[in-house]
Amino acid sequence: MWVDPRNFPRDACAIGAALDHLGDRWTLLVLRETFFGVRRFEELRRNTGAARNILADRLGRLVDAGILRREQYSDRPPRDEYRLTEKGLDLYPVLITLANWGTKWGDFELGPAIALQHRACGAVVQPALTCPECGEAIDARSMRVVPGPAMVAAAAAADDASG
Amino acid sequence: MWVDPRNFPRDACAIGAALDHLGDRWTLLVLRETFFGVRRFEELRRNTGAARNILADRLGRLVDAGILRREQYSDRPPRDEYRLTEKGLDLYPVLITLANWGTKWGDFELGPAIALQHRACGAVVQPALTCPECGEAIDARSMRVVPGPAMVAAAAAADDASG
Repeated sequence: MWVDPRNFPRDACAIGAALDHLGDRWTLLVLRETFFGVRRFEELRRNTGAARNILADRLGRLVDAGILRREQYSDRPPRDEYRLTEKGLDLYPVLITLANWGTKWGDFELGPAIALQHRACGAVVQPALTCPECGEAIDARSMRVVPGPAMVAAAAAADDASG
Repeated sequence: MWVDPRNFPRDACAIGAALDHLGDRWTLLVLRETFFGVRRFEELRRNTGAARNILADRLGRLVDAGILRREQYSDRPPRDEYRLTEKGLDLYPVLITLANWGTKWGDFELGPAIALQHRACGAVVQPALTCPECGEAIDARSMRVVPGPAMVAAAAAADDASG
């Protein structure tokens, strides 16, 4: 089965599904902070530069989406921390690939403030996308679009209807 | 040198630098389309659902940022296509990691419409982040923050001033 990637139905696009939750600069800045271990409203506000109402809105949406969870760390006054759930932790590769691109193309005088060290092997590296089957590095020219589960099911249903 | 990732200066953050250009749902949907080979205004409009003025604005910003380039494909009437530059093609890992997350956590009845096949080895896979030094898969718990070029330079300058 052949796929023209210009025309498949976008309502079953995994990128679109991700962007329903992530398509906003403040949201992604808040997530950056939570990966850095920042958990409290005032620190999130300071590090992102978001206005209070915007930050409260984005935190609420991330909690509703199950990406962050709220945890009370003080009774009086009542105060919450925000922590990444497993669903949130799974966004790490998105932040890393954004950082890699920003490192290469950002307008820095001296490069980025920080770097990342792989705990297991000790190397200071930029994690890179590879094929889990053969281990080769992946770039924009490496992959071909093929039918996914929804498209295969739709084609089978169409076959049934016409036969 | 030790880094508290909660407190390093965010003005030299590579993620922030990337989000200066990418922190918008329409922008990322437009980029998705260009990776699928969609180049023309009307098709971009149809596939993203963006209003004309929003689409024109985002395309203009992406061209200004050097992520897309405009190419005239018709004289009468004058019509432009939009194509990814090298800077744009370098965003492929961002789109792939968004797609991986959307595939896992999106609310699909049958899974995503499409899948990706690695041209070189033929496997249908989700490219994954690995350490380029040791080849191990990377997740949110794999990496430690260490000083980057800007932080090392700032520390050296502070040493000079005090010595």
